[in-house]
Amino acid sequence: MRASRERGDLYAPDCPSRAVLDHVTSRWGVLVLVSLLGGPHRFSELRRLIVGVSDKMLSQTLKLLQHDGFIARDAFLEMPLRVEYRLTSSGVQVAERLAVLTEWIEDSIGAIEGARPK
Amino acid sequence: MRASRERGDLYAPDCPSRAVLDHVTSRWGVLVLVSLLGGPHRFSELRRLIVGVSDKMLSQTLKLLQHDGFIARDAFLEMPLRVEYRLTSSGVQVAERLAVLTEWIEDSIGAIEGARPK
Repeated sequence: MRASRERGDLYAPDCPSRAVLDHVTSRWGVLVLVSLLGGPHRFSELRRLIVGVSDKMLSQTLKLLQHDGFIARDAFLEMPLRVEYRLTSSGVQVAERLAVLTEWIEDSIGAIEGARPK
Repeated sequence: MRASRERGDLYAPDCPSRAVLDHVTSRWGVLVLVSLLGGPHRFSELRRLIVGVSDKMLSQTLKLLQHDGFIARDAFLEMPLRVEYRLTSSGVQVAERLAVLTEWIEDSIGAIEGARPK
């Protein structure tokens, strides 16, 4: 691991933190990361859990989050081959912060909908 | 305000919580909400602060967040007319949760970049 660069700045368009923000706050990124807080999952399990995601989008989301180091892919030498995705330690940190947001939205949706202009 | 509906479920594709998640986690949604934690801002101030956002995207983001009740628009009867955007109480709640995430990303970007596969 290289020495850390200076602190990122999400308000600067060329800062790499913007791409990381996009990956972890994409709809599927959020749901994949929060799902994996419950433990490692196979691709097919994530696909079933996150209703509406396509194979292509799930696969792309997992690749981006692996490249950012938030998710690791473990292949177990069994027959048939078993592959699982799990959070790394930085993945746990980002997923816990996302879960605070998603839980608030799930808890508050009634009030949000009720307060909309009619 | 209507009585609250049941708790939302972000894993259900037809739950209105998914649209709210999309609004608050869009790149510009995140940056607008976190910016307004610093106090009310005029459109032109937000535009300058959030480098790279277009007038059209900023205007659309503000409208969606107003419709969700996270942002209020105050027009002051002065000459020239002054219009400011501010967080509502639910906006503060969502923005505080987003700020925990954005601060973590800004703090961690060096380690994230350093750990990427070469």
